[in-house]
Amino acid sequence: MAKKSKLKMIPLGGLNEIGKNMYLYEYENEILVVDAGLAFPDEEMFGVDLVIPDITYLEKNKDKVKGIVLTHGHEDHIGALPYVLKKLNVPVYGTRFTIGLVENKLKEHNLLSKAKMNRVRQGDKVKLGRFVVEFIHSNHSIVDAVILAIHTPEGVIVHTGDFKIDCTPINGPMIDLARLGELGKKGVLALLSDSTNVERQGYTMSESIVGETFEEIFQNAKTQRIIVATFASNVHRVQQIINAAVKHNRKVAVSGRSMENVVEVATTLGYMEIPQGTLIEIDQIDKYPPHKIVICTTGSQGEPMAALSRMAMSDHRQVEIGKGDLVVISASPIPGNEKSIAKVIDELFKHGADVLYKSLADIHVSGHACQEELKIMMGVTKPKYFIPVHGDFRYLVQHAKLAQKMGIPQENVFIMENGKVLEFNRNEAKITGSVPSGKVLVDGLGVGDVGNIVLRDRKHLSQDGLIVVVVTIDGKTKEVVAGPDIISRGFVYVREAEGLMDDVKQVAQDSLATCKNNKTTDWSSIKNTVKSHLTTYLYQKTKRRPMILPVIMEV
Amino acid sequence: MAKKSKLKMIPLGGLNEIGKNMYLYEYENEILVVDAGLAFPDEEMFGVDLVIPDITYLEKNKDKVKGIVLTHGHEDHIGALPYVLKKLNVPVYGTRFTIGLVENKLKEHNLLSKAKMNRVRQGDKVKLGRFVVEFIHSNHSIVDAVILAIHTPEGVIVHTGDFKIDCTPINGPMIDLARLGELGKKGVLALLSDSTNVERQGYTMSESIVGETFEEIFQNAKTQRIIVATFASNVHRVQQIINAAVKHNRKVAVSGRSMENVVEVATTLGYMEIPQGTLIEIDQIDKYPPHKIVICTTGSQGEPMAALSRMAMSDHRQVEIGKGDLVVISASPIPGNEKSIAKVIDELFKHGADVLYKSLADIHVSGHACQEELKIMMGVTKPKYFIPVHGDFRYLVQHAKLAQKMGIPQENVFIMENGKVLEFNRNEAKITGSVPSGKVLVDGLGVGDVGNIVLRDRKHLSQDGLIVVVVTIDGKTKEVVAGPDIISRGFVYVREAEGLMDDVKQVAQDSLATCKNNKTTDWSSIKNTVKSHLTTYLYQKTKRRPMILPVIMEV
Repeated sequence: MAKKSKLKMIPLGGLNEIGKNMYLYEYENEILVVDAGLAFPDEEMFGVDLVIPDITYLEKNKDKVKGIVLTHGHEDHIGALPYVLKKLNVPVYGTRFTIGLVENKLKEHNLLSKAKMNRVRQGDKVKLGRFVVEFIHSNHSIVDAVILAIHTPEGVIVHTGDFKIDCTPINGPMIDLARLGELGKKGVLALLSDSTNVERQGYTMSESIVGETFEEIFQNAKTQRIIVATFASNVHRVQQIINAAVKHNRKVAVSGRSMENVVEVATTLGYMEIPQGTLIEIDQIDKYPPHKIVICTTGSQGEPMAALSRMAMSDHRQVEIGKGDLVVISASPIPGNEKSIAKVIDELFKHGADVLYKSLADIHVSGHACQEELKIMMGVTKPKYFIPVHGDFRYLVQHAKLAQKMGIPQENVFIMENGKVLEFNRNEAKITGSVPSGKVLVDGLGVGDVGNIVLRDRKHLSQDGLIVVVVTIDGKTKEVVAGPDIISRGFVYVREAEGLMDDVKQVAQDSLATCKNNKTTDWSSIKNTVKSHLTTYLYQKTKRRPMILPVIMEV
Repeated sequence: MAKKSKLKMIPLGGLNEIGKNMYLYEYENEILVVDAGLAFPDEEMFGVDLVIPDITYLEKNKDKVKGIVLTHGHEDHIGALPYVLKKLNVPVYGTRFTIGLVENKLKEHNLLSKAKMNRVRQGDKVKLGRFVVEFIHSNHSIVDAVILAIHTPEGVIVHTGDFKIDCTPINGPMIDLARLGELGKKGVLALLSDSTNVERQGYTMSESIVGETFEEIFQNAKTQRIIVATFASNVHRVQQIINAAVKHNRKVAVSGRSMENVVEVATTLGYMEIPQGTLIEIDQIDKYPPHKIVICTTGSQGEPMAALSRMAMSDHRQVEIGKGDLVVISASPIPGNEKSIAKVIDELFKHGADVLYKSLADIHVSGHACQEELKIMMGVTKPKYFIPVHGDFRYLVQHAKLAQKMGIPQENVFIMENGKVLEFNRNEAKITGSVPSGKVLVDGLGVGDVGNIVLRDRKHLSQDGLIVVVVTIDGKTKEVVAGPDIISRGFVYVREAEGLMDDVKQVAQDSLATCKNNKTTDWSSIKNTVKSHLTTYLYQKTKRRPMILPVIMEV
């Protein structure tokens, strides 16, 4: 077989990290892209809004790209689309709910009119060059999620996206294991499978368990107003809240922009059923007694600007929390959000509300497969090669171990890195090279203009603040004609540290005098002298290292 | 009963927060202090090293303070001592191991020679003014922890400190429930009890469970070198590592300053037994085959400067991680540390090591009582009043609910706040006022000189950086004679944003021209104009809001 006919799989994001999922399949001169997700900045990325994959390789191979196929509508799988489409306006394929969410997003970026959106249904097959992409029904914490079977000249690749096995989901059937088994029987070349929950033993509980808990909560909350916070995109969760409300004769009001959005998209497309007269506007809630009201809200991750946080901080226009409110937080903290959620819960309690959260009740289930489900996925698809995806390095390692327990030989399991190229045909697979990959930081309107130097400065400034030393020098005589003036921010509270600031001025003056005595006249040497004297002085005096910014003006 | 004879309890820290524990008992003109702990800064406290209680009230009542009594040697109970003793050099009382750790700490602060340290044994009673403090044997994740029974003229107060009920601890007996029961029978006025684990049902497992897991791990790790990371102060844990090593003929090397410290203090005081020839120096490890070595190290919380992190980042002088290493992280993440530990685990895996951590094995148990143990504490002491302590607000609420289930009437349960004064005698208890309290931030050598304004500036700088605009003006003609010069840090990478920086300069020039045309000559108006024009321009252009710092010099 000629070298160039080999099939390649190239992850541009999603490995060794949570989020930013993007995977390329390349065959001869055709590229198929699966997902285009974003990641949230880590704590060292000061001021960064979001992180997207580096798509240099796609931009260089623009003409080869046949399209972008989406597995589901979560941000870590679709969030980078507006940025990708700006560079590469290729057709996009997804199920109706996924495309619905994408279109909302593209509208905000003024990209919708030019975009080439294609709606598919679960079960559909779409031909994209020599790839045939089959959309297989799946279960996840968002509706209309699919597993992709990518039919290539070298064989079939099963690409799970995020999934769980839910035998009693809320609307629609369980994941199409039968079709996956059929593919497995015929022979699956490779399986790329979701590693998010690989550390958890057993099975993820069914979404319908949450409905049972809601039922119990609603029964007991006889006189209380109920406020439920959850992920807006979890349509089935919201449906279950509505079901419980209808059963217990409560009206439902929705709070939070994304919740309003999703409820609208979901009802329009028929993914959510809300009996006439159930929904009321949020500003109408006071017309009903508390025990006739349910408020369904965003903010389950403690996001400071979301509706629940605003309620907790007494900053919500229509909802005032007090005694007689029962707040249910129907979500788990995404790692990193633990403290902000805890803060919101504390505030709600302080207002006198009762709060139910994950540590206390079964009010949330995960959307990702646990170990037994992951084993079933391998067991039915029987792949020749296995590539664990989605997650930090340790997750990929644990998932690889699980694959070996399932009888997949170690040499057929690939723990990949973003940017690595895995080439395979029916006889062999190996990593043959790499393409550019990495994190592109988005800060405001800037895409990629914040890099390591800017982040290092922001970190330095955040730790000890800064001191600006300004001096004006006569261009001819080289005499100081004004200053040095000292301005500080984020260092000490200046009004209570006048002595220290006087000392700083004195040290700066002495440094300038030293320069003059030494006949140092070039600006950068003078600046370095001032900087180093001040840094040493301040560290000795305060054990802090503010950024020192000397400025010399010449008249 | 005269008003002034009432007993007061005043928490200065530890309520509505994790850490910074400090509680005052006041009777007539005498004050007894229990613990003096620190808290770690939260993510909004940029650059802050640690947080200590505001002790204004103690400073004002210096002469009343009879002494400081310590429950155990963890930082959240002793970490503020150096700062407190600098203001208030009163006698300190604690068990031998606790005082051993305190003395190490005071040495670093050059305070040891002046300090008045007093060693007690479990079971001892110490008279401090009209308070008699009884030190009752307890179980916790550090040796020599005590529960205090504070005998006052109004009755006995049981102050638990951190505790668990461990019926099979490693050295020494289980917590002295018998004595607590005896006190309960005679009548306990109030119980202040540890709320840390109140959300967990059932019992906390015994420390000896971890030994069983270690045994299993050591048996299976036939050819591997074993590296165990844990809290240095958990002497029993370290003892169990040593026991397993001895049993399996391995030498033990210790890495990390605090681990070396604790092993030394613990062996000197007889809290740890290490057979002759077991310990070797860390630089001797390469003289033994891997399966003859155990390294006991700090860094179980992913602290960037600790030994385990340095090993993971290939930055440890004596230990190089590779295939054939088994790393055991014998600790749970303290909330907020999840991500840094995950990073360390990922790096260890990338070096080829095998890593065991909490999600995968029973290699850690908590040091705090779960619900059933908390109920036992209430059940045996039978307090009239109950005050939940240690923890965020929601923990105090849950603990209060538990107390009501145990039959303590709601009106006898007090959810307190730091600084509130709870006054009580045999007949009644109520909150009667408050004293100054709060967080004092320590940054380098500065204690309390970083406040809200400084933190706000640090946050602002960390988000979008800053732009300094400097201009020199002729004092007489009011003409600009130099500048405006633009300096930016943490905003954009200037070399790739020259156009933007030119625009900034132009906007600044236009602002100055506007001021001149409008005959605006006072500096603060000019600065405000420049600032507001630039802020508007930059937000429009970049959706970022860097700090704008206009500086005017006059010649």
